[in-house]
Amino acid sequence: MALKFEISNTAESGGRRGVLTLPHGAVQTPVFMPVGTAASVKTVEQGVLERIGPPQSDGQPRGAEIILANTYHLYLRPGHELIARMGGVHRFMSWQRPMLTDSGGFQVFSLSSLRKVTPDGVEFRSHLDGSKHFFSPEHSMDVQIALGADIAMVFDECVETPASWERTKESMSLTHAWAQRSKDHFEANRHKVPWHEEFGGATQNLFGIVQGGMYVDLRKESAEHLVEMDLPGYAIGGLAVGEPREVTREMIARTLEWLPQDKPRYVMGVGYPDEIEEYAKMGVDMMDCVLPTRAGRHGLLFTRAEDGSVVRMNIKRKEYAEDQGPIDAACGCMVCARYTRAYLRHLFVAGEPLGLTLNSIHNLHFYLATMDRVRAELAK
Amino acid sequence: MALKFEISNTAESGGRRGVLTLPHGAVQTPVFMPVGTAASVKTVEQGVLERIGPPQSDGQPRGAEIILANTYHLYLRPGHELIARMGGVHRFMSWQRPMLTDSGGFQVFSLSSLRKVTPDGVEFRSHLDGSKHFFSPEHSMDVQIALGADIAMVFDECVETPASWERTKESMSLTHAWAQRSKDHFEANRHKVPWHEEFGGATQNLFGIVQGGMYVDLRKESAEHLVEMDLPGYAIGGLAVGEPREVTREMIARTLEWLPQDKPRYVMGVGYPDEIEEYAKMGVDMMDCVLPTRAGRHGLLFTRAEDGSVVRMNIKRKEYAEDQGPIDAACGCMVCARYTRAYLRHLFVAGEPLGLTLNSIHNLHFYLATMDRVRAELAK
Repeated sequence: MALKFEISNTAESGGRRGVLTLPHGAVQTPVFMPVGTAASVKTVEQGVLERIGPPQSDGQPRGAEIILANTYHLYLRPGHELIARMGGVHRFMSWQRPMLTDSGGFQVFSLSSLRKVTPDGVEFRSHLDGSKHFFSPEHSMDVQIALGADIAMVFDECVETPASWERTKESMSLTHAWAQRSKDHFEANRHKVPWHEEFGGATQNLFGIVQGGMYVDLRKESAEHLVEMDLPGYAIGGLAVGEPREVTREMIARTLEWLPQDKPRYVMGVGYPDEIEEYAKMGVDMMDCVLPTRAGRHGLLFTRAEDGSVVRMNIKRKEYAEDQGPIDAACGCMVCARYTRAYLRHLFVAGEPLGLTLNSIHNLHFYLATMDRVRAELAK
Repeated sequence: MALKFEISNTAESGGRRGVLTLPHGAVQTPVFMPVGTAASVKTVEQGVLERIGPPQSDGQPRGAEIILANTYHLYLRPGHELIARMGGVHRFMSWQRPMLTDSGGFQVFSLSSLRKVTPDGVEFRSHLDGSKHFFSPEHSMDVQIALGADIAMVFDECVETPASWERTKESMSLTHAWAQRSKDHFEANRHKVPWHEEFGGATQNLFGIVQGGMYVDLRKESAEHLVEMDLPGYAIGGLAVGEPREVTREMIARTLEWLPQDKPRYVMGVGYPDEIEEYAKMGVDMMDCVLPTRAGRHGLLFTRAEDGSVVRMNIKRKEYAEDQGPIDAACGCMVCARYTRAYLRHLFVAGEPLGLTLNSIHNLHFYLATMDRVRAELAK
């Protein structure tokens, strides 16, 4: 058994309070997963990640319980085979808690150039050096098994936005064929994960990805097709790619209806703090997004107004130049405990790298604290 | 009393084991001071700085006990008056341990353009935006009092290298006149330091700077002139500016002869790990240098060979790509305790900001551990 998912309560809203147990540990759900693209959550040290977020009943923060790494980036640099020889990505980056890798599909379609898609896979050029590469479902599985995250994702095609119903259906069908090939190859090779023996024969879990663009009938078809494959968890992909938020919400709400109640559901690449709260309450168990760290590196900090609504603070603004208050007086993060807005503004304006780190830590804490509160609400 | 300097032992080599007590705390000497140019030791968080270095008898590291900030940089951005309104640089950056500011002179002469030196002071253009500024001894004092470090430095001219005896003597004479004006203005205004009342009437200390280039007779003249001024500490400036290391050593050795035994002696802007050890053993009590952090940001890591000699490791090198060992197995820093050379190389090659942070932490630990060992040797 590689994965256990226990739901302790389901709220009227559909939101579920659960625990997802993976080879590298337990994850309280719903969970937000910080993104560590190239085996580093940008600017934040692993020891800090382990202590981020609000304190629990024992007075200690949980820290981030699961993080994500990007298959495409690690495949290109330093290479999945190197990481396998180092014992897998957990050991490579010294992160002994759960991890998830995406399939590389999204990055192949968003970052690389000169893509050529055939039924067999995708030929593409590296965004780093222009070198030519080929990803097939089988190759994505080999790469993800070498990286050895607790959760791997099937290789999917990400359709451009907007796309017609016909184009979306065609892409979805390819994704379904690739999902089956991903599963077959994964099951035949999952025992090759670098920590297989060390973990007493435990291994990775492969999640499916529901596609279907912005078309409800295709989402239904995709969900039903994947559910038939009986995978241990399901993601909803291809959202937050520029469509209006009502559409995102609608696609999530409808797709959740067709996914099994007893398996974890993951919405990829979302979102803003109010979004992750909303989707968690609708029944999404897992989310990831670069936003807290990327926004932090751009000087955008998340705080809450007294009514609980999310406020975005641009720390560059002149009005903070002599502001001796913390980012958010109600925030319990190490940045708000020690540093003023005036100092953070100075660091950002002066181009000091520490500013990017402190901004990222605050935003990650904000996301983790948001999910902590949502979990408490869903437990009632 | 703003400063107390107690020497507990003087070794045969001339090296002294002491404690320098300043308004913001005690500093074990000889000491290496990390440089926090713009009120941040680049890439390293203050909480990490407080825990850096080898554990003491109580099992806890001392951390950095004193850091330096650059007057020129803080004057230009965010401005010394802003920092004064924030309560001084300690409170501004949340560093409640001792600090030292340089006079701004060195940066005016090394970073800015279109300098015009007159007996009154220096007109220069900002390296940031080309704006025109004027620094006089009085203005440097005002800026340093506003910043409020525990130790301020007299405003000096830094002569270009190499410089003739005549040119060096002329510059030295200007520096001496400026030192007197610095002292007069400092003494009349030191009570304006932002934390004066909060610290029960304590205030800053002004150190003199011995100049004289690479000429022993001028160094003697400069030291004797400054000693007459009866300042609480003395720096040796204008070294490590490109001259051979034997010349640096000779200038330090000779100048130390003419400085009072009972006052702290500070060599500015040095140096490599073997240099700081050597000079400490000769009787230098304080040193500062950007090298540990700057080298770290360039992927250069300091380690020791089995015979104790310093080894420079270029973490970029291919040979470390799959090296699962720490930077230095004998090092007790948090980086060597957790991360491999392979991971550090990957971070550096991938341009991940975390790499710069971890490299800087290791190098700062290396410097602080070196001085910790030297202090133990000098205590015998």
